[in-house]
Amino acid sequence: MKLATLKAGGRDGTLVVVNRDLTRCQRVPDVAATLQQALDNWVDTAPQLAAVYEVLNNGAARHAEPFDAAACHSPLPRAYQWADGSAYINHVELVRKARGAELPESFYTDPLMYQGGSDSFIGPRDTVVADPAWGIDFEAEVTVVTGDVPMGATPAQAAEAIRLVMLVNDVSLRNLIPNELAKGFGFFQSKPASAFSPVAVTPDELGDAWQGAKVHLPLLVELNGKPFGKPNAGVDMTFNFGQLVAHVAKTRELEAGSIIGSGTISNKQGDLWGSSIDHGGVGYCCLAEVRMYETIEQGKPVTPFMQPGDRVRIEMKDAAGNSIFGTIDNTVVTPSAS
Amino acid sequence: MKLATLKAGGRDGTLVVVNRDLTRCQRVPDVAATLQQALDNWVDTAPQLAAVYEVLNNGAARHAEPFDAAACHSPLPRAYQWADGSAYINHVELVRKARGAELPESFYTDPLMYQGGSDSFIGPRDTVVADPAWGIDFEAEVTVVTGDVPMGATPAQAAEAIRLVMLVNDVSLRNLIPNELAKGFGFFQSKPASAFSPVAVTPDELGDAWQGAKVHLPLLVELNGKPFGKPNAGVDMTFNFGQLVAHVAKTRELEAGSIIGSGTISNKQGDLWGSSIDHGGVGYCCLAEVRMYETIEQGKPVTPFMQPGDRVRIEMKDAAGNSIFGTIDNTVVTPSAS
Repeated sequence: MKLATLKAGGRDGTLVVVNRDLTRCQRVPDVAATLQQALDNWVDTAPQLAAVYEVLNNGAARHAEPFDAAACHSPLPRAYQWADGSAYINHVELVRKARGAELPESFYTDPLMYQGGSDSFIGPRDTVVADPAWGIDFEAEVTVVTGDVPMGATPAQAAEAIRLVMLVNDVSLRNLIPNELAKGFGFFQSKPASAFSPVAVTPDELGDAWQGAKVHLPLLVELNGKPFGKPNAGVDMTFNFGQLVAHVAKTRELEAGSIIGSGTISNKQGDLWGSSIDHGGVGYCCLAEVRMYETIEQGKPVTPFMQPGDRVRIEMKDAAGNSIFGTIDNTVVTPSAS
Repeated sequence: MKLATLKAGGRDGTLVVVNRDLTRCQRVPDVAATLQQALDNWVDTAPQLAAVYEVLNNGAARHAEPFDAAACHSPLPRAYQWADGSAYINHVELVRKARGAELPESFYTDPLMYQGGSDSFIGPRDTVVADPAWGIDFEAEVTVVTGDVPMGATPAQAAEAIRLVMLVNDVSLRNLIPNELAKGFGFFQSKPASAFSPVAVTPDELGDAWQGAKVHLPLLVELNGKPFGKPNAGVDMTFNFGQLVAHVAKTRELEAGSIIGSGTISNKQGDLWGSSIDHGGVGYCCLAEVRMYETIEQGKPVTPFMQPGDRVRIEMKDAAGNSIFGTIDNTVVTPSAS
């Protein structure tokens, strides 16, 4: 089934079930007022939400209303956990290569992950409010939302606890990262509020594309109206979502509603310059990656970070070409203009 | 006023107002079912909660019940944000000195802070479930809970948004830290679930001890029944809570219920060995610190990390010797024994 959260109704918004085509939705106050409430009691709520979904898809829902992605907040407007992995090691390899550093062997066996701020996400169509001097970048990723996961869960057990799949624009402030990482405690100010896709879907909605706890479909990124990236999220993903969730669970339990991200999607590509979409490649899911290619090949980055007015769109389509999660669509504005 | 959360009543427990003596409490379902609900709507709820508090302290509350800290969860059993600073630079200086490294000058102007996991705290009297091989340590700290804070707030504005003060045992797994920090993304598995004090109090409860957005009282730490630390939280705090909250708010807004920590309390002490309580000093708020002194003076640490059965107690008393927040009291057990 497909779920979304309308902005109306308070800090956590209002849960709606959305039909498969993303054209109609229905509020479900008798089942759960918010997505967090549904996740807190998933064994009871999921069958009821699934029943509403079936009626919606049959066109028989009497209380349905038109679905408008622009009226949506992130499915969880605030969450108790947002932890983001870096599962596409190709991306990490490039970062290191661009600064002439080796990739430690352990990076292929021990996931890299950071704890993100989750108290206040922006909506899928909200502006990204940031100072261009901070080096504004997007990162297009796939995420999952878990149920409760006990401490010490195996990757297989962790994969079983995955309730929903979403997309995210993990906004990154690249010029703040070097100083912050040099301090040794990881990202903080360099990772402002993220935006998630309008719609969260259960893994079964992905059909054959959900295999081995990975999503085997291209993630489509458009920058200022032009195709920028279309790497396949199922390719070159060194750690699947079961492994990422199990990494979180090694020393503590996860509570329902935890969001775990894949990190920037990145496919290995033979010829560096051939990797841009203009040259027939699959392109990129963040500006930093093309800037790293430029640094490796030309000695310095050429593509600028996002400027006020720049717009990024992120979505994923099924085999028939239909949008699965709706579109993330964020435009940059400066703090003074917001 | 003083607030606490009973474990009964679901994932977020049940909010109670506690009297000043910590002997009686009252549920307030007509005001707010949970502390997060109260914080979400503080302008409306705070005066109502304060009215209950006044009646409780006068002994006239008809629906009061005995207050039992052992029945409490952390005041926010799960939170949307837990970000921990490292405001006592003396502690950071010692860490660096023990490994022969210099402290960058910027550490005195730019707070060090990490984003912690907040989806599933343990209660103030719960066991710490961890493998002794991980190097189990406590960190005794002061924390604040904020209301909404806009992006770009000044330290003064941020200080105005402080709603509550608590204590925390920020459990740390020291043997997991070196590898994790070497990976460059900060703490993750090395920071399992924290335990907060049974009671959260409004800053006015601290009277004169709340000045300059710092708590000017000793934090009392007891290890296995013996005094271990009593440094003053108002001394050697390089960044006050206004500055710490403003650091978080530089690139994003904070939503009500965000918990911001001070980092391990640590006072500068002239003679290294004189700093232990046995030698007339103020002692320590974590085992790592005494181990760093040992390393500096003896070439290697001698004091072991916590073992199964080891017990740490953390509390703070007012000028009259009364416990302000109740006592955090955590005993270590191994995962298999939990």
